[in-house]
Order: sequence, then structure tokens, then C-alpha cells
Amino acid sequence: MNKHYVIQIGQRLFQEGLVAGNCGNMSTRSPSGFWITRSESYLDQPGDLVFCPIQGAVPRTASSEYKVHREVYQRTSYQAIVHAHPPHTVALSFGTDEVTPVDTKGKFLCPAIPVVTGEQGTEELAASVASGLQHAPLVIARGHGTFAAGASLEQGYLLTSLAEYSSKILLMRVPDKR
Amino acid sequence: MNKHYVIQIGQRLFQEGLVAGNCGNMSTRSPSGFWITRSESYLDQPGDLVFCPIQGAVPRTASSEYKVHREVYQRTSYQAIVHAHPPHTVALSFGTDEVTPVDTKGKFLCPAIPVVTGEQGTEELAASVASGLQHAPLVIARGHGTFAAGASLEQGYLLTSLAEYSSKILLMRVPDKR
Amino acid sequence: MNKHYVIQIGQRLFQEGLVAGNCGNMSTRSPSGFWITRSESYLDQPGDLVFCPIQGAVPRTASSEYKVHREVYQRTSYQAIVHAHPPHTVALSFGTDEVTPVDTKGKFLCPAIPVVTGEQGTEELAASVASGLQHAPLVIARGHGTFAAGASLEQGYLLTSLAEYSSKILLMRVPDKR
Amino acid sequence: MNKHYVIQIGQRLFQEGLVAGNCGNMSTRSPSGFWITRSESYLDQPGDLVFCPIQGAVPRTASSEYKVHREVYQRTSYQAIVHAHPPHTVALSFGTDEVTPVDTKGKFLCPAIPVVTGEQGTEELAASVASGLQHAPLVIARGHGTFAAGASLEQGYLLTSLAEYSSKILLMRVPDKR
Repeated sequence: MNKHYVIQIGQRLFQEGLVAGNCGNMSTRSPSGFWITRSESYLDQPGDLVFCPIQGAVPRTASSEYKVHREVYQRTSYQAIVHAHPPHTVALSFGTDEVTPVDTKGKFLCPAIPVVTGEQGTEELAASVASGLQHAPLVIARGHGTFAAGASLEQGYLLTSLAEYSSKILLMRVPDKR
Repeated sequence: MNKHYVIQIGQRLFQEGLVAGNCGNMSTRSPSGFWITRSESYLDQPGDLVFCPIQGAVPRTASSEYKVHREVYQRTSYQAIVHAHPPHTVALSFGTDEVTPVDTKGKFLCPAIPVVTGEQGTEELAASVASGLQHAPLVIARGHGTFAAGASLEQGYLLTSLAEYSSKILLMRVPDKR
Repeated sequence: MNKHYVIQIGQRLFQEGLVAGNCGNMSTRSPSGFWITRSESYLDQPGDLVFCPIQGAVPRTASSEYKVHREVYQRTSYQAIVHAHPPHTVALSFGTDEVTPVDTKGKFLCPAIPVVTGEQGTEELAASVASGLQHAPLVIARGHGTFAAGASLEQGYLLTSLAEYSSKILLMRVPDKR
Repeated sequence: MNKHYVIQIGQRLFQEGLVAGNCGNMSTRSPSGFWITRSESYLDQPGDLVFCPIQGAVPRTASSEYKVHREVYQRTSYQAIVHAHPPHTVALSFGTDEVTPVDTKGKFLCPAIPVVTGEQGTEELAASVASGLQHAPLVIARGHGTFAAGASLEQGYLLTSLAEYSSKILLMRVPDKR
């Protein structure tokens, strides 16, 4: 795992306002589990990632959201996961079970973003996120944040960035009156 | 007091838009008083902090909001205080006596944010902020800014960041129509 | 082509929120074609630009939006093109065929911004953008992004920045009630 | 004139979104005239400022808004002027002849911000801005931008920053329903 690469992704997440404070976490799959950012670390200063086995006890230093990441790695073949708190995207999650972008790029890359539920840290959240990610590469946990998965952390970040752009357009667009 | 640490907190407050210009101030408790940022200093370039005794005269170079900080240290056991001007949070403070986050993390860490009153620099403001911080780790002075307290400046900053995120969600969310 | 110059323009586009993730692309005319940013590159870390001839096959590494750029260079005398995704500007593009700034600088430099249509990557989009740029130096592809053209990348960036400023004013302004 | 100081003020204006692109300009009084940023320069990379005499011809390289600055220096005793384009502040200028902050700091430092008129580059604009600045340290040219004056560039920047904060609060605040 290239440290510089992880930091760059984290810095971009901050610069675009997709995370703030010590919110969010990131992980990448390894042969027998996954590496995840530390609990309460800043994504632009993550330090060493923590190894979590695919089953069984995990180190206390791992992000408390390791359950969601593990369930996703168990049920899918994604290689990396980015969890962030993009405000416009989360703001859209209260009124619907699916966010539907209207901008060109959003329509192409994430045409239907599932909104899933579950309290933070619960098996229910882990199950609903993993289930959602089997149908789309990005899901929104209602009132909480996004989980984006792909072949790399970069893919997860780019999907998160796109979802926030699409959500800004949805919230600000002036409707067609013609 | 580690200068680099204070600067880092200040930089994060700026980068997230939680302060602008020379707004805001920060302090940490010491055995016989507290260290506070200088009057009119920029939080990302604070220079040396100024020592204020827990009672009696304070140096003229201390932030003019030292009264609020002192009252909080007198009445509580908090170790640090961050005062900031997060715009979404302050925008919510006019219509209510309590801001109630609807996002998961806000509901967990600051479920009821008291809105207190008092003109800047007055004993009334100092008393109402200190009183509010006895019940919650973050309060909003109506139409003015936030005061967040905790075991460290970092905790104060993180609470401020979270309050602003929760306030963005409150202001932008699309209501549930189901 | 001065690398440092291209990077500076890209950094400014990011800092002002005119692009996010790996969105957007930029090109400059050369005697027999044009140099364009690489497919999926970040505009603030563009690496080497890719040469595209004015007609015929282009390298696979070129931005997939080379068709639009080529059509513009064929039909006009512009020396450079900047394609970006400014959210406020795109948000305005759904309800109208022309965005009309009300701020002083927008009224002076881009008084009528054409809104054009066409799916991403199509000849239709290339034709409608090139046609629009024959009448104005900046056009909005509806629900997609802006194309700004001029004598230099800097001119394209400055027009994009201005369009987003004008669009913010259009979306936020408090109407005159007098 | 300390270059580093001018650059720092310019950088802060950018970081807070008070200017974008090559908008805005700054000047400081000298015994027989004033030093102003160059035409079309970026405020965070201003290069050398240009000297303008208090009367008579000015160098072509001076900001085209030198007329406003000169009129202000002729009619008042301010030592420095900052012209910026803060979007929330300008958005408020269409519906009123005076912007009245409701936040504590705005009420204290700029309780009534005059909105003045005049086309860019005209004597009318110069006269109305200079007239407004005789009554308040910051004025808004309707649909255009702010002019803030004081004892230093820093004072002008801080007033601009405060006006934008106050305007954000005015635009976003949730009205008191009690």
C-alpha cells in the first residue's frame, strides 16, 4: 500500500469538501482481509493503515466502521472502499430511497444511487450497504454518508466526488419551464 | 503548548470555512488559568498564546473574548475551548433555542445544541455560554458563533466541524415525502 | 507548451470548484492540430498533453472529449479551449436556452451564454458546441459542463470563472422589490 | 510596500472566495498618489504595484478601476482600499439600497452597508463609491462588487470578509418563528 497514494486521495476528499474533521474512512482488500484507516484518523494524515482479517477479531485501532467494509469484501469482489460525508448527497437522502442524477456524467456512471438504512456500527448497516453495493458502486446510508467501492481507492473517491457534483446539481438546478 | 499543534487546528478551522478573517479564538487550561490566542490574531498564524489568570486582570493582548473562556474554566472541568463562526450553524440560531441535528453523527455526538444569548464582551454572554456548556459540549451564541469545549483543542475543533456539517444537512435536506 | 502554466491553470480551476475529481479537459491549438489533456487525468496534475491531428485518428490516451475540441478548432480561430464542470452554471442550464448574467462583469464579458445540447462523446455535441462558440466565447452543454474558448488557456479559465460567479449571483440574488 | 504582505492579503481573499480569477484590485496611499495592483493581475500573484499620481495621467498598466481608488483618496483620509467580488454580498445588492447585517460582529463593525450604483470604469461609479465611503468603511457597488477602505489593506480585507460572512447569514438564516 503506497502511503503517498492514500494521502493524495485523502487530501482530495478534503479539498472538495467530501469529508471534514476526522470523518470518513478508507480500505483496500488484501489476500486474507483488508487494510483500513485507523479509528478517528484524518484521511489526509492517515498514518499506517490497520490490517483486519476477513473474519474474526480486528485490532482496536481499526476504524469503528470496519464491519461495513468487511461485509462488503465478503459479499463482493471490490478491491477498495471509500466512506465519506458529502453534505449535498446526504441532504438528498432523507426524502427518497434512490437518488437519480440529472447531469450527464452522473446519469452515465451512477444513474440510480440506492439509499440504505441502519444505525452506525450495526450489523444492519453493514448488511444493507453490502447489499446495495451488489447493485451499484455507490450507496448512501441515509442521514450518514456514502460508501463507494471499486477496483481502487481512486475509483471510490471519483465516484464520491461525482455523486456530490450530481447532488449539487439536483439541489440547485432551475427547473425547465419550457 | 505545542505551537505546531495549535497552528494545525487553526488551519483546519480555516480550510473548512469555520472561521474567516481574524474571527474566532482558542484557549487551553493551565494549572492557574488558561492560555488564549491574541486579540485579532489569525487562528492559522496565532503567534504566542497569552496567559490569563483564572481571576483578576488579564494582559491587554489577550483575545477580547477572554471573559467567556474564563467563566467556562471557572464553572466546568473542560481543558480547552474553541470559538468559531461557522456560517450555517449561526444561520440556524435565529429561529430556535436549540438546534437538533438529523444526521447520524450529529444525533450521536451533539443531539441538542443549546442556543444562548448575550452581547459580545459582556458578562451575560460569559454566563450564558458557561451555563450552556455545563449541559452540552457545544453551544451557539445566537447570531454570533459557536463555543465548543472538551479535553483538547482538537475535540473543540471536531465538535465545531460536526455542528457545521449537521447544520448544512438541516439547511439543505430534502424532506421525506413518503 | 509550458507545463508549469498548464498546471497553474488546472490548480486554479480546482481551487475555485470549477472542476472536481478527474472532470474537465483543456487543449491548445498547434499548427497541424492541437494538444489535449490525457483521458481521465487530473487537471492539476495533467502530465504530458497528447497531440491530436486536426483530422484522422487520435491517440487512445487523448481525452475522450477530443471530438468537441477538434470541431471547435476546425470551425473557429480560437487558440485554446477549457472544458469544466462549474456546478452553479450547469444548474442554471436546465431551465433555459440562454443564461443571461445580471452582474456587471458578466453583462460586459458574456452577456448571453448559449445553452447547447448533445450526448457526451457524440458528433451532435461537437457540432452544437462548435456552433455556439462561433457566437459566444463560452457555451454550456446542458446538464454537463462549460466549454470556454479564447486566445489562451488562461482566457478560457477566466471566462469559466466569470460564468460561475455570474451564475452564483443569478441563483442567490435577492430580487429587487422596489 | 511589503510584497509579502500584499501577497498574503491576496491569498486570503482567494481562499475565502472573496475574489476569483483576476477579479478585484487593491491600493495603498502614498504621499503624492497611490500604488495599485496591475490591470488583470491575480491578487495572489500581483507582481509589482503601479504608482498613480493623485491627479493627471496614470500608467496604462494600472488597474482600470484606478478612477474609483483615486476619487476615494481625494475625498477621504483612508490609507488603503480593497475591491473584491464576494458573491453573497453582491447577491444581496439587487433588492435594497442598504444591507443591514443581523449577526453580532456585522452589526457592530458595519451596521449599514450602503449599496451604490454606476457603470464600471465611469466617473459616476467613482463618485458614488467615494461618497458612500465617506459614511461607511465598506460599500457595495450594485451587481458588481465591494469597496472596503481603512488604515491598511488588512483592514480592507477584514471588512470584506466580514461583509461576506454577514451576507451568508442574511441569505441562509432561518427566521425566528417564536
